[in-house]
Amino acid sequence: MDMGGTIVEKIISSHVGEVVRAGDFCVVTVDMLMCHDATGPLTIKAFNEFERENVWDPQRVTFVLDHAAPSPNERVSGLHDMLRSFAKEQGIRFFDVGEGICHQLMLEKGLVLPGDIALGTDSHTCTYGAVGALSFGIGSTDASGVLLTGKLWLKVPYTMKIIVSNSFKPGVYPKDLMLNVIGILKADGADYLCLEFSGSCIDEMSMGGRMTLCNMAIEAGAKGGIVPPDEKTLEWVRRRSSRSFAPQTSDKDAYFIDVLHIDAAGLEPQVAFPHAVDNVHPVSEATGIPIQQVFLGTCTNGRLEDLREAASILSGRRVHDGVRLLVCPASRQTLLEAIEEGIISTLLEAGATVIPPGCGPCPGTHLGVPGDGENVISTANRNFKGRMGNNKSNIYLASPATCAASAIEGKIADPRKYLS
Amino acid sequence: MDMGGTIVEKIISSHVGEVVRAGDFCVVTVDMLMCHDATGPLTIKAFNEFERENVWDPQRVTFVLDHAAPSPNERVSGLHDMLRSFAKEQGIRFFDVGEGICHQLMLEKGLVLPGDIALGTDSHTCTYGAVGALSFGIGSTDASGVLLTGKLWLKVPYTMKIIVSNSFKPGVYPKDLMLNVIGILKADGADYLCLEFSGSCIDEMSMGGRMTLCNMAIEAGAKGGIVPPDEKTLEWVRRRSSRSFAPQTSDKDAYFIDVLHIDAAGLEPQVAFPHAVDNVHPVSEATGIPIQQVFLGTCTNGRLEDLREAASILSGRRVHDGVRLLVCPASRQTLLEAIEEGIISTLLEAGATVIPPGCGPCPGTHLGVPGDGENVISTANRNFKGRMGNNKSNIYLASPATCAASAIEGKIADPRKYLS
Repeated sequence: MDMGGTIVEKIISSHVGEVVRAGDFCVVTVDMLMCHDATGPLTIKAFNEFERENVWDPQRVTFVLDHAAPSPNERVSGLHDMLRSFAKEQGIRFFDVGEGICHQLMLEKGLVLPGDIALGTDSHTCTYGAVGALSFGIGSTDASGVLLTGKLWLKVPYTMKIIVSNSFKPGVYPKDLMLNVIGILKADGADYLCLEFSGSCIDEMSMGGRMTLCNMAIEAGAKGGIVPPDEKTLEWVRRRSSRSFAPQTSDKDAYFIDVLHIDAAGLEPQVAFPHAVDNVHPVSEATGIPIQQVFLGTCTNGRLEDLREAASILSGRRVHDGVRLLVCPASRQTLLEAIEEGIISTLLEAGATVIPPGCGPCPGTHLGVPGDGENVISTANRNFKGRMGNNKSNIYLASPATCAASAIEGKIADPRKYLS
Repeated sequence: MDMGGTIVEKIISSHVGEVVRAGDFCVVTVDMLMCHDATGPLTIKAFNEFERENVWDPQRVTFVLDHAAPSPNERVSGLHDMLRSFAKEQGIRFFDVGEGICHQLMLEKGLVLPGDIALGTDSHTCTYGAVGALSFGIGSTDASGVLLTGKLWLKVPYTMKIIVSNSFKPGVYPKDLMLNVIGILKADGADYLCLEFSGSCIDEMSMGGRMTLCNMAIEAGAKGGIVPPDEKTLEWVRRRSSRSFAPQTSDKDAYFIDVLHIDAAGLEPQVAFPHAVDNVHPVSEATGIPIQQVFLGTCTNGRLEDLREAASILSGRRVHDGVRLLVCPASRQTLLEAIEEGIISTLLEAGATVIPPGCGPCPGTHLGVPGDGENVISTANRNFKGRMGNNKSNIYLASPATCAASAIEGKIADPRKYLS
């Protein structure tokens, strides 16, 4: 093959043992598999049907209890037990109740590195593209095969390049950028493509911001999102892991199926309206919509910088009467650092309820199911009908700053008026 | 009537308008009524059947969302809405999700004062005896009558005096004293009596410790528990309320139906075994029992001093592998103070999961339902079969210190070995 490869083609090639290009079918070796309490039990059930004793490599498997943790009911307690026991028997790395959200832990603990192929039984596994890994969600049955063999059958995805130039204006964040991209592409606009993010705005962006972008790639239908690793990435991962890794970047003559140009400086805060992530509007079209619950957290926006942004707006202010502000740090480490910085006290004093690290109310299993007819504004990645456990509620998606401003006003608000 | 009165007889007399004594039937005026999300909806339903528009005095009514907050499911979200709407319509004082446990809030916010009669639709309403109030739980239907009239029909209870001499040895706490008392009296040993606590140990005891004692009076069948107000009480309540109040104490010639003497210095840490609160054993008979979950919180022992005691034992140590330590501060204020003191960081670093202020997993509605066959050690007040949401689990009750020591060892442990 004469043509150079995209970062994704090069990562896959290195895991096949020969050069492959978009559209090829291949079998890849897997560096890491992640399962959580919502889908892990199905994976174990399917694995047990193989009637084989051991998983391929317990060091390359991670289980996390995050979707409904601590357990909200007897049934979930039983599923937690099942994962706990299987992990113990097999020697699988295990993060119990309270450690945090799977995707945050996989990155924060240095379990996924540039050039890796990492899979998870969760659609937002694509988050790990932020460190230059190829990562995506797979079904529980596919995962059982990976558990057994360490391999996955795969069609190599084409890549769409998203070039983001210039810098955000104050009050605009990576979440706004990604909502804007999804609004442009629509929910199926990037079906089975990888989104490769580049441009000066991405170069400047924090690792957390890059995670926000890659996390939501799936919301445009993409197989994954990826940011080619730079010095920032390498410094970030080296602080977290001593494992060797092989970072990749796209060749100059790589083939991109499409290129989308975005001017970061032209963006205003964005809001996704119910009941679709691609139903995106500028905040100016959303201000004034009454809100009863605000949720700050999730694998999309529950990191330290997200809590910090919200706290800077809420500092010295109070959550509006009749609004419940739920705050869920993405991990134990995030919570500890946010306490250390005074962020948690600021949020509590403003009237927030801090819930334990994990997915919180995002998947609708507990810890803040909205009431009938209520409007929620959330930093999460999905606002499908019923997503938070009540199909008679409405979910708006926005940045932590927009959510914080909305908590103060009791209606969707433009965060730019609260910037100091 | 020639004979003097007990504190309880004198409080009731002042609320009847004439002198009454134990055994008399009377109608009292009520100073405060508290309803929460578990029983409040039934109270409102019964109130609505009166077809009357307004509650007797919204200033004397308080609603708290604590039993399942944030809401774990759509049904509970609907009940929360119901309480929120009724409170708003009627002008009732309302503590939403995340403010804390009802009993803690009633005391911490200065809503119950010495000499008051305070009622609540919760059996542990007797906690307010700690400030020298007569308080007890009533059913939701009775509460609807109070909502309408501000009055309650009542038989004046006899009083049992519990005189606690000397001081606790290190590692022994008010919780151990009260478990010991319940072990002696048994679950029905004080049926419809009031327990009046006195003696040098009570004089020395913190207000929080007195709350622990009064909170558990119901576990011996008592109508209530009460500690006659002293300078410590008056100083404590004056910091929280500017409302006038009329503290009472028992007359010297008051009639007590029984007197129980306890030597605090002779106590060792106590543990209530499954499935009854009065199944009490010294910790020496419990050490070594394996534990999978530890719960530190509740209206019994979720206060700052409780968290502080646990943190002092857990500081620099780790929760045992396979043990989940859930920590639930009794209120937003408790959480903020515990953060300020570094207690929360210490607990998180030891491996604890901090859940939002409220009842947490104690009533079995969410946030830590144990698995089948699991053993839990908890600082709560009840260990009935299924109490925490799974009737195939076992609950042991103990002090925060014993719970912390047990979290370290993964089995029930004597806290005295961890005292510095």
